[in-house]
Amino acid sequence: SGLVLVKNPHLDLMEEDVLYHLDLGTKTHNLPAMFGDIKFVCVGGSPRRMRAFAQFMQQELGLAGTGEDVSDICAGSDRYAMYRAGPVLSISHGMGIPSISIMLHELIKLLHHARCRDVTIIRIGTSGGLGIEAGSVVITDTAVDSSFQPRFEQVVLGDVVVRSTQLDKDLAEELLACSRDIPDFPTLIGHTMCTYDFYEGQGRLDGALCSFSSEKKLEYLRKAYDAGVRNIEMESTAFAALCGLCGLKGECCRSHLH
Amino acid sequence: SGLVLVKNPHLDLMEEDVLYHLDLGTKTHNLPAMFGDIKFVCVGGSPRRMRAFAQFMQQELGLAGTGEDVSDICAGSDRYAMYRAGPVLSISHGMGIPSISIMLHELIKLLHHARCRDVTIIRIGTSGGLGIEAGSVVITDTAVDSSFQPRFEQVVLGDVVVRSTQLDKDLAEELLACSRDIPDFPTLIGHTMCTYDFYEGQGRLDGALCSFSSEKKLEYLRKAYDAGVRNIEMESTAFAALCGLCGLKGECCRSHLH
Repeated sequence: SGLVLVKNPHLDLMEEDVLYHLDLGTKTHNLPAMFGDIKFVCVGGSPRRMRAFAQFMQQELGLAGTGEDVSDICAGSDRYAMYRAGPVLSISHGMGIPSISIMLHELIKLLHHARCRDVTIIRIGTSGGLGIEAGSVVITDTAVDSSFQPRFEQVVLGDVVVRSTQLDKDLAEELLACSRDIPDFPTLIGHTMCTYDFYEGQGRLDGALCSFSSEKKLEYLRKAYDAGVRNIEMESTAFAALCGLCGLKGECCRSHLH
Repeated sequence: SGLVLVKNPHLDLMEEDVLYHLDLGTKTHNLPAMFGDIKFVCVGGSPRRMRAFAQFMQQELGLAGTGEDVSDICAGSDRYAMYRAGPVLSISHGMGIPSISIMLHELIKLLHHARCRDVTIIRIGTSGGLGIEAGSVVITDTAVDSSFQPRFEQVVLGDVVVRSTQLDKDLAEELLACSRDIPDFPTLIGHTMCTYDFYEGQGRLDGALCSFSSEKKLEYLRKAYDAGVRNIEMESTAFAALCGLCGLKGECCRSHLH
């Protein structure tokens, strides 16, 4: 049916669903009227960047002429920022798996309550590239963990549940085809490694703690490259797992800036 | 010596240290002049709340009369917000272990570069309480993971390193003594459980996914209570581990609001 799925039998029994971190709710807001026509959701870490992206989408879609600037739909919360431009929603998710997970749980419920259909969700932003040209965009086929495994380990009531992190293959190919229409826009499909830590977890030598040598760092990154990893970030496994389970066509697409 | 320790031999060899997510650096800012007299750092998830806390501290310290409002020291970055009131720094860390870890790595380097001495760091904010009166404040003696173990598992180049999550006992007792001077301010010392997820990880029945019954949830929370857990949040194990390793006297102190 193309509807967004929630997999929670308790939700039907609730009189009201408060999407606390988004400052929205089923009793306080008419979610179908506000969001029913949403077809694309773009998410990224930084609130300022997601605002700029919504403004860019407004121009690209020819909506800028209306003179209306984008305004933060979640202004009552300082956890996330949300903007819309026509059928496109642009939302920030902060940094790391726990932060994006809270946002995605509430976004998925929002799209469900709004009875949205055939929604595509794309994670955009920057990442650390691995053995690729600076400025390249990596489209993720599979998100892998710090052991290069295509899995997301979710703790549920103290027990580990393993989830798939495969992303939508057709969407990845479609995005790659789009990139070919743009001159000088190096783009590739590859695995994306997702870590829980930016400094020690990604082999950085400039954190407050660093117990390894430059050689050990390179050895680890070489192993990652050999396993198919082309960029490293901090949210993709949780993103892939949650979108996959809830029927959202999802993709990660990130540029390697330096 | 009371100095903040960095445990990274590579740092001495770097010409410049850019604290990227704080929008500060050793070449662009005179860190000893800006921060050398800092004695207390208070951290919490929400930027707005940490601004309000800095304004409150200004009043409490009698600095409000100067008519100066607090301004965001990290205004160039939208990742974290930082304010100061006399010797007190107030910083937001977003939600979850990965987000607070990035901030703490850069904060610890900041305090190190600024040659701060005898710094106390306190995590403040709200949390979910467990079997305690609403409005109670929990002062953490030990942060535990979702298996109720006093450990923080940090992945370093793909390998798991286990770290201690013991917080400063004297500081906990000192804070408890302070609370006793305030009427109607229920305060206790207990374990704090730290999870990677807000919905499934903390047994919530209202996420986009929920595979367990209300009974299973209560069973898990009862086990946590029996293990000494009195509140649940998403940052304390990483906070305790990093502060402990870097010589920062640290404490978590959170109120249970509902």
